Amino acid sequence: MARPIPRIVRASATPILIGDPPLLNVLGVHQPYTPRCIVEVETDEGAIGVGETYGDTEYLTLATTLAESVVGQPVTALNGLTDLAYSAAGLADDAAAEFDPAGLRGRRTKTKLVRSVVSAFEIASLDALGTTLGLPVHALLGGKVRDAVEYSGYLFYRWANHPVDAAPVDDWGAALDPEGVVAQAKRFATDYGFGSFKLKGGVFPPDEEIAAIKALARAFPGQLLRLDPNGGWTVATSVRVANDLDGTLEYLEDPTPGVTGMAEVRHRTGALLATNMVVTSFEEIPAAFAADAVQVVLSDHHYWGGLTATRELAAHCRTYGVALSMHSNTHLGISLAAMTHVASVVPELRYACDTHRPWQTEDVITEPHVFRNGAVDVSDSPGLGVELDRDALATLHERWQRMDARDRDDVAAMRIAEPEWTQPPLPRW
Amino acid sequence: MARPIPRIVRASATPILIGDPPLLNVLGVHQPYTPRCIVEVETDEGAIGVGETYGDTEYLTLATTLAESVVGQPVTALNGLTDLAYSAAGLADDAAAEFDPAGLRGRRTKTKLVRSVVSAFEIASLDALGTTLGLPVHALLGGKVRDAVEYSGYLFYRWANHPVDAAPVDDWGAALDPEGVVAQAKRFATDYGFGSFKLKGGVFPPDEEIAAIKALARAFPGQLLRLDPNGGWTVATSVRVANDLDGTLEYLEDPTPGVTGMAEVRHRTGALLATNMVVTSFEEIPAAFAADAVQVVLSDHHYWGGLTATRELAAHCRTYGVALSMHSNTHLGISLAAMTHVASVVPELRYACDTHRPWQTEDVITEPHVFRNGAVDVSDSPGLGVELDRDALATLHERWQRMDARDRDDVAAMRIAEPEWTQPPLPRW
Ligand SMILES: [Mg+2]
Ligand SMILES: [Mg+2]
Repeated sequence: MARPIPRIVRASATPILIGDPPLLNVLGVHQPYTPRCIVEVETDEGAIGVGETYGDTEYLTLATTLAESVVGQPVTALNGLTDLAYSAAGLADDAAAEFDPAGLRGRRTKTKLVRSVVSAFEIASLDALGTTLGLPVHALLGGKVRDAVEYSGYLFYRWANHPVDAAPVDDWGAALDPEGVVAQAKRFATDYGFGSFKLKGGVFPPDEEIAAIKALARAFPGQLLRLDPNGGWTVATSVRVANDLDGTLEYLEDPTPGVTGMAEVRHRTGALLATNMVVTSFEEIPAAFAADAVQVVLSDHHYWGGLTATRELAAHCRTYGVALSMHSNTHLGISLAAMTHVASVVPELRYACDTHRPWQTEDVITEPHVFRNGAVDVSDSPGLGVELDRDALATLHERWQRMDARDRDDVAAMRIAEPEWTQPPLPRW
Repeated sequence: MARPIPRIVRASATPILIGDPPLLNVLGVHQPYTPRCIVEVETDEGAIGVGETYGDTEYLTLATTLAESVVGQPVTALNGLTDLAYSAAGLADDAAAEFDPAGLRGRRTKTKLVRSVVSAFEIASLDALGTTLGLPVHALLGGKVRDAVEYSGYLFYRWANHPVDAAPVDDWGAALDPEGVVAQAKRFATDYGFGSFKLKGGVFPPDEEIAAIKALARAFPGQLLRLDPNGGWTVATSVRVANDLDGTLEYLEDPTPGVTGMAEVRHRTGALLATNMVVTSFEEIPAAFAADAVQVVLSDHHYWGGLTATRELAAHCRTYGVALSMHSNTHLGISLAAMTHVASVVPELRYACDTHRPWQTEDVITEPHVFRNGAVDVSDSPGLGVELDRDALATLHERWQRMDARDRDDVAAMRIAEPEWTQPPLPRW
């Protein structure tokens, strides 16, 4: 018996500010508060679905416009969202434009901006549809092939505190040398059971980071280790680090910027190279895969365009013999739920996914996800299986209204502690 | 509110024989009856879904085994079907094996066999799920982006009748020269409104087929024309035909066998080349796309592995700037419904799809699809929007039991009329 397809009667894009610890990377340091955008869609049957994406101004502007455009659309109309976003924003498709090689999210194009915003609406729609039908999102994607999704502990060099007042505080303390990194990892292992660790590198001269990885290898024999300097090294430095850590790393992530450099490192060392910087869109796949520049693509379902797009990326990887895992970027519980659902339906996903948990402690869902043995169970509840905490959303939105943080800027944050700091050229070492 | 995910409590694979006219191609002629396999799945909520695939012995054998294995599975468990098929049949994945360059469906591998069978179960499951939820299959695939799907009229050289008794008869008469082809096309245009025509070539010396295309161009000014000799020509012949028909053809389909030859034809003529022979699986994409051997991939959702796989193929084509359309092979109404649903959700599909209608007049659904202006409306009814005609299914299955036709063999059928006929080497001209 046919049922009317539910239509969207209300949609919103709410900017919030989330507390973020002083985590260091090649560009600088995380600011005390970072913007996210929370998307809601409500159907004519009263189902509410939620999505989450980057909250910087350009994302928020497009999300606000798209929230108006989706009203009246069938909640199943996922394939039309991209065109809707382009026409809503009066944008032309220009995949090649606005190249920003230094961004931590890879090159910036309007296409990626559109995809990042569309992803939040796609996920909110799937959440609302699943809620309406009583089916989990994974079932709407062809069904989970695993019951839990493994995540990797994300170790950061960090200060104990932000160098400003009115910043969030935590009890993790500083980690600025191998001992600090190992201590951080021990707490990760105890509290969350992560079976693999990724260290965000590019912060200190490479020899210090090599020493940190070796200290982790001694402290956690048999654990899988990853190092990600965000393109901070020259090819020569990358080759030296890859050779020194041969047999110690599960993979080396974005050692050097650009396809040509990555391919050279690969060819000279045979090291397994992962990326969330040189392959960040479908447009970048052909050249990178042809050059064997990357062996593991770390997807970010936001900038790849959502959950169906992530599966399409997985299909490309399968065809070309490239592995797939997932990158993480300051996500909250909505995105962690979305990552877990899509990771559960991709048979080929063999590497533990990245997560910024536990660095973000604030959230907009009522029950935080639980990591058991480093893994998150795949929810069989309707939709994403998370419930929006409206009080928390209101509080974090009120913070966004009150404060002036609008766009993530790790360089500016670093300049507060080191007034001479400017955006380092990549490669730096 | 969570609902129990419907589970499959019964599944079947029913072989049938379908009447087929004496249509000619490079290998020979269609037999009077051709096998198809009709798949049904029934859920614990009483929903029945249908699928359809090739019915030759190896397909039927695997489908029969898989029908046993899916019992007890969630009807949403599409991502697990391939592994289930492999383990059900005790097969190992060997994408590269069992190469058969002369087959009209491209190379034959166990992987393609598995995909062809899985596709019928995937579609039957989507049909059952859609029926249960009250949603059309296209809505389960992210929603249609068009309300009707255009098809191309499929012209064949043919005899008036099969050279055997007890064969199906029709009133189309013979078409063995340009006049016969034009007459056939006129009836297609009148009865179905097709806006483009494809001529199955490779039957007569190329000059005769060039003459037929030119006659069509004169009779239907402005109509889009395609010619498909199924790899029947050498590179030199292909180049000559492509140059002679430059400006007359919408595209040239599989002029010559193999990636290397196709690429050479492309490079020497600039002609737009389509294929359903050299790119028939994901494994064949990298070499063919890298060589620019094909510019239009004609998917067959059976051997690509189903509707999600077809969308994954579409994503590859989008990434590599290759166009997508659809091949057709003696399908009945179930597969035509599936083709129409998936074609409706792929934004990039810009070429009219192939269809064997009206050559197959028998069917297993209660209401045949209607072609209006060469297009089929996308159904908004639950599931595929077709209803199984159990009497017709029983009759056609009884024919399968009664007769000994088991595997399609165009060469053997030709030998009845021409006793000296053997499988022609490709290329032939
Ligand atoms: Mg990274
Ligand atoms: Mg063909």
